[in-house]
Amino acid sequence: MSFANYRSLYSRLQNYRDIQSVLQWDSEVMMPSKGREARSKQLSEMSRLTHELFTGEEFTRVLESAQEEVAKMPETDPLRNKRLRELDLIRYRRSKSSKLPTAFVQKLSEKTNLAQGIWESAKKNQKFSEFSSTLEELVNLAKEQADFYGYENEKYNALIDDYERGATADFLNTLFQDLKKDLIPLIDGAKSHSNPFAKMEKNGMKGIPVANQEAFCKKLPSALGLHENESRLDKSAHPFSTSLGPKDKRITTRYDELDPLSSVFGVMHEVGHSLYEAGLSEIEEAPHPIAEFLSLGVHESQSRLWENQVGRSHAFWQYYYPIALECWNLSEKDLPFDTMMSTIRSVSKSKIRVEADQLTYNLHIILRFEMERDLIAGKIAVKDLPEIWNAKMKDYFGLKIDNDAEGVLQDVHWCMAAFGYFPTYTLGNIYSAQLFAAFEKKHPKFHEQLAKTGDTSELLKWLRANVHHKGSEFSVDDLVFDATGEKPNSQALVAYLKEQVSS
Amino acid sequence: MSFANYRSLYSRLQNYRDIQSVLQWDSEVMMPSKGREARSKQLSEMSRLTHELFTGEEFTRVLESAQEEVAKMPETDPLRNKRLRELDLIRYRRSKSSKLPTAFVQKLSEKTNLAQGIWESAKKNQKFSEFSSTLEELVNLAKEQADFYGYENEKYNALIDDYERGATADFLNTLFQDLKKDLIPLIDGAKSHSNPFAKMEKNGMKGIPVANQEAFCKKLPSALGLHENESRLDKSAHPFSTSLGPKDKRITTRYDELDPLSSVFGVMHEVGHSLYEAGLSEIEEAPHPIAEFLSLGVHESQSRLWENQVGRSHAFWQYYYPIALECWNLSEKDLPFDTMMSTIRSVSKSKIRVEADQLTYNLHIILRFEMERDLIAGKIAVKDLPEIWNAKMKDYFGLKIDNDAEGVLQDVHWCMAAFGYFPTYTLGNIYSAQLFAAFEKKHPKFHEQLAKTGDTSELLKWLRANVHHKGSEFSVDDLVFDATGEKPNSQALVAYLKEQVSS
Repeated sequence: MSFANYRSLYSRLQNYRDIQSVLQWDSEVMMPSKGREARSKQLSEMSRLTHELFTGEEFTRVLESAQEEVAKMPETDPLRNKRLRELDLIRYRRSKSSKLPTAFVQKLSEKTNLAQGIWESAKKNQKFSEFSSTLEELVNLAKEQADFYGYENEKYNALIDDYERGATADFLNTLFQDLKKDLIPLIDGAKSHSNPFAKMEKNGMKGIPVANQEAFCKKLPSALGLHENESRLDKSAHPFSTSLGPKDKRITTRYDELDPLSSVFGVMHEVGHSLYEAGLSEIEEAPHPIAEFLSLGVHESQSRLWENQVGRSHAFWQYYYPIALECWNLSEKDLPFDTMMSTIRSVSKSKIRVEADQLTYNLHIILRFEMERDLIAGKIAVKDLPEIWNAKMKDYFGLKIDNDAEGVLQDVHWCMAAFGYFPTYTLGNIYSAQLFAAFEKKHPKFHEQLAKTGDTSELLKWLRANVHHKGSEFSVDDLVFDATGEKPNSQALVAYLKEQVSS
Repeated sequence: MSFANYRSLYSRLQNYRDIQSVLQWDSEVMMPSKGREARSKQLSEMSRLTHELFTGEEFTRVLESAQEEVAKMPETDPLRNKRLRELDLIRYRRSKSSKLPTAFVQKLSEKTNLAQGIWESAKKNQKFSEFSSTLEELVNLAKEQADFYGYENEKYNALIDDYERGATADFLNTLFQDLKKDLIPLIDGAKSHSNPFAKMEKNGMKGIPVANQEAFCKKLPSALGLHENESRLDKSAHPFSTSLGPKDKRITTRYDELDPLSSVFGVMHEVGHSLYEAGLSEIEEAPHPIAEFLSLGVHESQSRLWENQVGRSHAFWQYYYPIALECWNLSEKDLPFDTMMSTIRSVSKSKIRVEADQLTYNLHIILRFEMERDLIAGKIAVKDLPEIWNAKMKDYFGLKIDNDAEGVLQDVHWCMAAFGYFPTYTLGNIYSAQLFAAFEKKHPKFHEQLAKTGDTSELLKWLRANVHHKGSEFSVDDLVFDATGEKPNSQALVAYLKEQVSS
């Protein structure tokens, strides 16, 4: 009964989190602008309830009894290890929270709230100097946080662990340096194509109207496996996906009339996240920790896989090209198939991470990883960041940065003190390439089938079995190894990118 | 400080209620159908939190200290009475909740949940006999509830009080019998007009397409005074309005292609509710009980006033007729002004309450009031309800009821054990007519102004001062008297209806 008691408490916690997700989704997608003040109060009330429940004495007591109960299970019982893993997952997360003194958490939250405004204004004024002292405070707080957590070798490890449990700076560095070595020559040889949609004009309208783009995008979630009566797709300023319950997944996207492909890939990206969440919800143990997402890197692997390995494939567009043309109200002459595929595969050296193509994107991440590692280690100073940033951009991309807004100030992550988050994006790309390569080996006819019928259910089935339904039962290393026969490494990603660039 | 402590606890309660409103709104308007199960859990979790906080010991303690503090205020302090009233409001509501044993509340909730399905199926089969024994249980539970509450004269009084504090069966009966006496001859002399939209056909489409109706309806909320960035209008199966925060009011409506006027009046009705809520939120003491809505009857008076006194007026349509025509893509020839006004004022003896015109609507309510009063008093038996219903329909409307679905089974209220709710609808009509007549007297140029410019701000200003901003500071009787110089009575309503029927 003790284990059941802990789970009943955890279900309530999950309920609170789902409620927070509803409040958050509504505020991003539906809420009238003046509703913000009241909504903040509602969200902070739910945060308080969640925090109190999660860190409270009742939870401690219940967990201890559960631990005793599970320890007494016969070692031959196959459930025993699974139960122990579940208790480990939850105690690990609780112990991290409990290591941070309340005063520190409050200070960090206040500082990052303030930093947001300062960063926005510095970015607008294109002046890093306006943000420099704020960032220095945030870096110091992050170091303090690492000290509270405790760490091996370097403080940065403690921070990475918040987003990708078990990953270390050394592990990432080995992966990323291998990848960088292969990426730089690939980028140099890649082709850039101009955007064909920018030139289109029909009935006095430039590009593809939002309604037409929407018509195509709305077909994708259910076609890829998200049930229509368990999900919805809306518009928001920043695309995201969220789970409001086991059978209630919400996706948002934004539309650019001059670039309908960006909304397509945006939707496929978020569908990937939601398919993972939907798969997790199917696990018998849901909504308990053993059935939660394993790491941010694994979460990102699911979005990237559908966005890139599927969405940018020849086979996908062989099936979807005529459908897209019809939705977009275009003829083959307006947009020949080859032109579209070249646009999809185009590599252009963007200064901005969020506008980068799939090849250069990883280089953007490696640059940030190297810098935040040195920053947290105290090897470089905050005031020198713009100079270092610009030198790396010249070195890796051959690009000259003209102002801090298009350089070191472009991303929001550091002003949220989220040091250690960036690497999970490239981990996602690495895992997705490995997973997809393993899947392709087992299902060599997948592309043929996809091109003919648009059917991707075989892929979803494989991901369900090898990733989604495994929840958090195993480590990332073990999950990747079991699914692919290899430890995490960048070879599959490089092979995939090479093929993309050359074809 | 004690009063402030109580208020801080009450703010949290209000926060919980707002969160429930967000969850509820989303479930009616946005949620994918399969999300229902998880949403029920979220809603019941919030109910539990709200109930625990409201009835808990901490609240009792804090209220007692507040009471002591206020009692010590000098009697000359003008705030003293207001504070006492606020504490009375909250203690009154808490004492009602606390009078019901938990086991009884649970039983009532289970029975009404079950009753819903039985009623739906009985209605579908047009057989009251299938619902009879269930209704009998519900009537008995309602009587038990009245016993727990305690009452004077008759049990029904205790039930009415849940919806309209202070109203009694005798008070309602006097009001309603006066009204009935005037209504029956009026109905006999009134004219019925056929629906002109049912005959329209353009581009192979019958009636007015939803998008065209929406275009007109979307103009109304902000035109009538709901700020655009503080509200939104959506579609839902059952129209409603709700407050998700002081500056976040949500309205929904439904569209019938053959009857665009029904969505217009539906929107104006819900706008009326939301304008009241928005006005309450402006009170300095919001979100505390003294700044909450006074009674269901008063709430309904605000929706009816905008729907009927404004929305069905000649002046309103003098301004909005050309705008509506343009939105609906109609010419004056398609829909002459006089035809439209006749349709708006048309009186037809419907068997169904929710389809009734403004004149016969009240007779539907009076019929229900008389029946539920006798039912709770034990003067009539559940099994005889269809016979009594049908006899009254013949007597008041001259209509023959062919089956129970169009008779005694038509409404959901009784299967929710909401005995005493119906009268608040007609109270709303009575108050709205009195309030509007008083306003007209003070602002004789209102109609002229409305016809010319569509401006209704003078009316809103008057309602803010005389109703909205008074919150719950005074009794309904006092509020109506202060605003109109008269106690609640049906004369203004009869005068209004006479004018509607004759012009």
